[in-house]
Amino acid sequence: MAGAIVGRLGRHPTSLLLLTLPRHAAAHHRLHSPSSSQGQYSKMGDPSERNGHGALTRVLFCGPYWPASTNYTREYLQDYPFIQVDEVGLEQVPDVIHSYHICVVKNKRIDSDIIAKATQMKIIMQYGVGLEGVDVNAATEHKIKVARIPGSTTGNAVSCAEMAIYLTLGILRKQKEMDTAVNRKDLGVPVGDTLFGKTILILGFGAIGIEVAKRLRPFGVKILATKRNWSSDTLPSYVDELVDKKGGPEDMYEFAGEANIVIACMTLTSETIGIVDHKFVSSMKKGSYLVNIARGRLLDYKAVFDHLESGHLAGLGIDVAWMEPFDPEDPVLKFPNVILTPHVAGVTEYSYRTMAKSVGDTALQLHLGEAFTEVEFVN
Amino acid sequence: MAGAIVGRLGRHPTSLLLLTLPRHAAAHHRLHSPSSSQGQYSKMGDPSERNGHGALTRVLFCGPYWPASTNYTREYLQDYPFIQVDEVGLEQVPDVIHSYHICVVKNKRIDSDIIAKATQMKIIMQYGVGLEGVDVNAATEHKIKVARIPGSTTGNAVSCAEMAIYLTLGILRKQKEMDTAVNRKDLGVPVGDTLFGKTILILGFGAIGIEVAKRLRPFGVKILATKRNWSSDTLPSYVDELVDKKGGPEDMYEFAGEANIVIACMTLTSETIGIVDHKFVSSMKKGSYLVNIARGRLLDYKAVFDHLESGHLAGLGIDVAWMEPFDPEDPVLKFPNVILTPHVAGVTEYSYRTMAKSVGDTALQLHLGEAFTEVEFVN
Repeated sequence: MAGAIVGRLGRHPTSLLLLTLPRHAAAHHRLHSPSSSQGQYSKMGDPSERNGHGALTRVLFCGPYWPASTNYTREYLQDYPFIQVDEVGLEQVPDVIHSYHICVVKNKRIDSDIIAKATQMKIIMQYGVGLEGVDVNAATEHKIKVARIPGSTTGNAVSCAEMAIYLTLGILRKQKEMDTAVNRKDLGVPVGDTLFGKTILILGFGAIGIEVAKRLRPFGVKILATKRNWSSDTLPSYVDELVDKKGGPEDMYEFAGEANIVIACMTLTSETIGIVDHKFVSSMKKGSYLVNIARGRLLDYKAVFDHLESGHLAGLGIDVAWMEPFDPEDPVLKFPNVILTPHVAGVTEYSYRTMAKSVGDTALQLHLGEAFTEVEFVN
Repeated sequence: MAGAIVGRLGRHPTSLLLLTLPRHAAAHHRLHSPSSSQGQYSKMGDPSERNGHGALTRVLFCGPYWPASTNYTREYLQDYPFIQVDEVGLEQVPDVIHSYHICVVKNKRIDSDIIAKATQMKIIMQYGVGLEGVDVNAATEHKIKVARIPGSTTGNAVSCAEMAIYLTLGILRKQKEMDTAVNRKDLGVPVGDTLFGKTILILGFGAIGIEVAKRLRPFGVKILATKRNWSSDTLPSYVDELVDKKGGPEDMYEFAGEANIVIACMTLTSETIGIVDHKFVSSMKKGSYLVNIARGRLLDYKAVFDHLESGHLAGLGIDVAWMEPFDPEDPVLKFPNVILTPHVAGVTEYSYRTMAKSVGDTALQLHLGEAFTEVEFVN
């Protein structure tokens, strides 16, 4: 495949690149003024001198999951044969990573051992926002930039917010019991619950939390939210219309006691791992619901399991799990009101096309030595 | 059971009724001023003279479906032993209906033969709004009032609107494929679709349609709606903020051509039976989605089936079916993106408790010869 692409390269000499750039990419180039990311990029030198594979810039997608990420990126880059997009199995990553300039992580853990092997790597990035599997310090040591695609501009946050509402409605209406009723030819059971009249706690009021609150507002709910820094300039001006009660991380237990539904929208960090623990879940109201569209390990498995078993939790709707892919036979899925979706909150036509553009443009910008306009560097 | 209730009646003499009415019911009585429904009621005479079963007012729930309707009504009336609430199988209704004063229809067809047998009947009512199975003319001839519980005040419209959004998100995200992915230990598939950016046509902009539009607004959608009479005084003052494009029934084909998602929220009448037919569905965009939370027979089965088969329809989400309960082996359910729920759109704790109060208060008001405050008469 690499050969085929190199072959095609002859028909697309590098000197014609700017002429063949799509209109939006060209516009980025024209409009861009020197910025901090330009500065960061300069430190990395000129990629055309450094990539060591002729004029080919190589992008590695780690593992077979979220296949549309690879497919849509290939499609976006189909007219740029000097960018090669490969996907390999998770186990093969350490063996091939030395050949690549950009790595799209997906759910691969990129630790210091792997980073040490990534001798030509310029950018480790996520097809989305979550970088919890990447050893950023090791990357920095090896002069590799680590980047995420901001969710607020790509439709990722919007997609995740829609999924949060779908899962919330699914457990309020008891999706599994509805399926059973259909199969038994029952009618008018189960009795579900409405969002209307409920109090909802949004844990983590970032890009996703904001979009969740916007959409929940007209359902007739009270919205509580916790966030580390409410003076952040990423908050919309109308935040007070979205949130009835704002708190810091220290308020989460008190807020949990007021809420009927808790939706986890936090980033996974060393501070937030397992933050939904026994103390938190037992602070929640009896008969309340828990939704997680962020990262599986925000929830303490045993805390959630025990409170489902006792009936303290009336339902659990999760798009993310503790191990992924998650064992479909895991006992937590046997409770009558637990719904798991296959980590697709952000996986929509809209967000995946937009993120494919972000990865594609980043690869083009790396290749061309241009400033990066699509990603947010964390180191 | 009737015996037990009659026995208990001795401890609750009728003369103490007003003292034992719950606070909200007593308030209705005190606050109520003579009205058209009082007038209608007066024509029916004093029920205590007419019911012919001593002091017992008998309420019949038809059939075993929507069991919470009976259970919640019994619970609401548990302190009023002079109201007897019974539920019988659909086939038994003709044999017992002569003993009852109020009939709660559910999905029983109440035709002129059954009405002729309902010799003591005063009110035929629905636990909700749909009265399409009731021969209203025959009821009128027999001096029986026919009533629905207005959806806008009971939470029925709100509950149905939430269900419409759940079903819409379910087909956009491909619920069945998500389940398959979980079971296969896939991750990040299927690629779903967002509400964001879509154009949605609401067919029938009554109480439910309004609640659907309110909730869809912040999802970033364009909303089209058709309604017979846009000058209706039941419309909220901010209707122009909810709807981007208003049309009459004659505009539905043109609007269908602009919409990505059609949500049926109409009443079933002789004019709307099968209104979503070949002409309509083929007017819809290729790859569009259809949702029905109103009545199954609004949709022409063959039209929907054929357009699912051809791929013209990308998904179908229905809470109501052509026959109910619907055959779980029906071929239409075998298409990959068809979701059926067991006619529970309006079945929530919130709406069912409120409607139990409506039925209960109506029975109490009939018993006491008071004006009806909870129902809307159609004859």
